[in-house]
Amino acid sequence: MDQQYWKNIDAHAKIWIHQAANLIKDSFTDELMVEFKSNPSDLVTNMDVKIEKFFIEQIHATFPDHRILGEEGVGEEITSLEGTVWIIDPIDGTTNFVHQQRNFAISIGIFHEGIGMLGYIFDVVGGELFHAMKGNGAYVNEKALKDLQPITLEEALFSMNASWVTENRRIDYRKLAPIVKAARGIRSFGSAALELAYVAAGRIDGYLSMRLSPWDVAAGIVLLNEVGGKATTIEGEPLSLLNENTLLASKPKLHENIIKEYINK
Amino acid sequence: MDQQYWKNIDAHAKIWIHQAANLIKDSFTDELMVEFKSNPSDLVTNMDVKIEKFFIEQIHATFPDHRILGEEGVGEEITSLEGTVWIIDPIDGTTNFVHQQRNFAISIGIFHEGIGMLGYIFDVVGGELFHAMKGNGAYVNEKALKDLQPITLEEALFSMNASWVTENRRIDYRKLAPIVKAARGIRSFGSAALELAYVAAGRIDGYLSMRLSPWDVAAGIVLLNEVGGKATTIEGEPLSLLNENTLLASKPKLHENIIKEYINK
Repeated sequence: MDQQYWKNIDAHAKIWIHQAANLIKDSFTDELMVEFKSNPSDLVTNMDVKIEKFFIEQIHATFPDHRILGEEGVGEEITSLEGTVWIIDPIDGTTNFVHQQRNFAISIGIFHEGIGMLGYIFDVVGGELFHAMKGNGAYVNEKALKDLQPITLEEALFSMNASWVTENRRIDYRKLAPIVKAARGIRSFGSAALELAYVAAGRIDGYLSMRLSPWDVAAGIVLLNEVGGKATTIEGEPLSLLNENTLLASKPKLHENIIKEYINK
Repeated sequence: MDQQYWKNIDAHAKIWIHQAANLIKDSFTDELMVEFKSNPSDLVTNMDVKIEKFFIEQIHATFPDHRILGEEGVGEEITSLEGTVWIIDPIDGTTNFVHQQRNFAISIGIFHEGIGMLGYIFDVVGGELFHAMKGNGAYVNEKALKDLQPITLEEALFSMNASWVTENRRIDYRKLAPIVKAARGIRSFGSAALELAYVAAGRIDGYLSMRLSPWDVAAGIVLLNEVGGKATTIEGEPLSLLNENTLLASKPKLHENIIKEYINK
């Protein structure tokens, strides 16, 4: 499998992502959004399933030996990363989708024998496609993203949901609260995929979450690898793409700094 | 002073805001942004002062009897709201400006004898101008914003910086932490002006901050008045435009809900 093989897959993936984005944008009628707001969970699931099915149909028709791991589980059940696996989140940031009709993304990572080969995070309404191919760098639309430089927490704009610094079942909030005090600023955008894309693009310096699924992070991992970013669990362990994980994604130095000074303190 | 009088001021304000935005965007050279990052406070202040001076020159030349209250204090000292006062934040969201080169705004509120007449919040890079004239409704670019409908916290996407739910000098964080748990979601964008514009546009349902200056909120107050939103201190008192305030800005019902069930509990 040479680079031409992956470039062919890349070309198809980009076309399908734009087609899926148009399907989503076509749903933004006033009537539908009122329905969404009154009954968000059901209706978002319908849209999620519709978009995931769209990708599955395209992939099966064009690359019949590829497998698919999707948020909605409409593909086959995946218990290993053998072969080529598409890991798909049709709408990452569903609360933003319903409340804002913006700040959500299509997120797709394509892995081969467990190695991240292609990654796409498409800000559907903002029109920014963050994309990367292993060894070929990462881009936002046609613009190359720069290598991430080391940074300290004191210089960092850091993204983390406020729920992790209030009492919760996943971590002692007193471990994370000092991060809020030490950082230059804290943000929260409500889409893990976009937050990973923003780390890759240098718009934020790091992102932490206590619970993410493989489809939330698969594309972001590929992007971050291309710009020298780090993405692991909050203890610094490799991320599993078959299970839920915690996540610490950031520029170099900041990553070790947070694990050593805050998580493992 | 009839509506034609305010429409004339409105026309001038919009032209100057676009001119100021171009001055800011012209500063986005790679070299300058490197300087910004290494020495952010000085350089942002330079840009803030430059933009504030631009507005002061235009206003003095065209409306010599108007007064100006600006973040950088390059205008006269203002100790009352008599007459017509422009309350200006040349760059709201300076940390975003430095780190992201986006998600910052020019914010201008124009008050007459203490009454908000005109409000402008311009997302310089996003290209969205949120604007309102008293009695004429609020708009994002040419699109009218809808009246805000009552909502509960459980249905709400709420914006609040994580620093207010960790130990701080302004409030017992245990008062605010339950808001994080009860809300449908918490966000933080890092620009009070944009967060107020998003409340007015219904993209978020409420926003709370423990420390804002008059120029952070003046424009947002005018916008929110036009769509039935509420903006007061967190105790429900009127906001002063001559001093720092706390701020609770939100849809109806949610506003009383938060004061009664969380702040005054």
